[in-house]
Amino acid sequence: MKITLIGGGKLGKQLYSAFTAQTELKLVQWVVRSAEKTKTSEGIPLSNEIKELYPTDLFLIAVSDQAIPSVAGALPMEAFVVHTAGGVAIEALNQNRAGVLYPLQTFSEGRKINFSKLPIGLECKKASDLPLLEKLVKKLGATSFHMNSQQREQLHLAAVLVNNFTNHLFVEAAAICAQNNLPFELLKPLIKETVDKLQDLSPKASQTGPAVRNDHKTIEKHLELIQEHRLQEIYKVLTSAIQNK
Amino acid sequence: MKITLIGGGKLGKQLYSAFTAQTELKLVQWVVRSAEKTKTSEGIPLSNEIKELYPTDLFLIAVSDQAIPSVAGALPMEAFVVHTAGGVAIEALNQNRAGVLYPLQTFSEGRKINFSKLPIGLECKKASDLPLLEKLVKKLGATSFHMNSQQREQLHLAAVLVNNFTNHLFVEAAAICAQNNLPFELLKPLIKETVDKLQDLSPKASQTGPAVRNDHKTIEKHLELIQEHRLQEIYKVLTSAIQNK
Repeated sequence: MKITLIGGGKLGKQLYSAFTAQTELKLVQWVVRSAEKTKTSEGIPLSNEIKELYPTDLFLIAVSDQAIPSVAGALPMEAFVVHTAGGVAIEALNQNRAGVLYPLQTFSEGRKINFSKLPIGLECKKASDLPLLEKLVKKLGATSFHMNSQQREQLHLAAVLVNNFTNHLFVEAAAICAQNNLPFELLKPLIKETVDKLQDLSPKASQTGPAVRNDHKTIEKHLELIQEHRLQEIYKVLTSAIQNK
Repeated sequence: MKITLIGGGKLGKQLYSAFTAQTELKLVQWVVRSAEKTKTSEGIPLSNEIKELYPTDLFLIAVSDQAIPSVAGALPMEAFVVHTAGGVAIEALNQNRAGVLYPLQTFSEGRKINFSKLPIGLECKKASDLPLLEKLVKKLGATSFHMNSQQREQLHLAAVLVNNFTNHLFVEAAAICAQNNLPFELLKPLIKETVDKLQDLSPKASQTGPAVRNDHKTIEKHLELIQEHRLQEIYKVLTSAIQNK
């Protein structure tokens, strides 16, 4: 299977590493905006112009959401074109052979992702294109599942909750620690257990703390402790949500 | 060291297991409200009346926050009395020899806690009582740190953020999955990476997603997708907090 990868951002770099770390998929070309800035393994042509295209089975687009339509628009209409975004409609790709390959993961600079067992959602305009994507996912060591556009939108929303919003709570907690001369490290075993619990218990069964036990005294005390209006709002909204589940 | 443990709830049971799993601390008595309901190892007298007290070096109280003052009030004034609550003032204990031993962890039924390396915060009215608590923590394999009352309050608040509120986001995400015929399992590698990232990056550096990249299109789409008012509020408040950090 010959693959052309387009995009040199956080996901593009991780896919590049994953593709070049194995031998059964052939990355024929990597197209990035700033070709000179990105290192490549020997033998994989790097282009900074989307017009010089090598023969390929699949164009995999890992660029920002808003750039997807124009990148796809520059590719041949008969090509198989696949984007990797959770929140972009498959219709953003004009090709008849179009697909989405959505890795349910968060990608940061300086953090290497292990694709092994990673769930990757697949969606194709033509069902006959799914086997090729399934094969690609398998070669990465990841796990594929089928989804429709609505399921993908909802998964993307759920991913924002469990990753982006959870991480923001860590940001707020780290600030509280810093303001009180306490190392954030102290909270890490608790954070780890919050996640490890999910092995044995549903999130609902895992819930503990002042909100779920209706401990108004502690809730009021915490609201007094919080100086910042925005954190007070977060505290109130989440406490109320826990109490009403 | 002789210890009397008071409380048969979630933390009480975990402490009971931890104490009886080792041989260097002697649990002389376990006082619980419903003595008949709780199994004990051979040789540890279980009392359901706080009046029959055995000679001990330390009373460790693991009862609900509101019960702490009355339980402590029933103990001898000359005893060393220690509670385990993050959010209860040390003054709730009338004894001169009073302390707090606060394990920074979440405790649920059906989930065995590993005390090894767990950070346990210590506070004592008399500094001369700290070494005894430090020794106790060490025998459990946990790690002690010193805190004052203000630091403990703030740590308790931070613990609510990183555990209770994070877990509620998991509850919301699990509901979204269920409503869309998607297994919650799909989100677990993402949840795991959200936490694993903290090994390499600060929470602030880890932040990704539509809020931090000011992707209004996706934010508006998500708000349209959400049917429930309360989840909309959570989405708005956390998105705005991320954007303003």
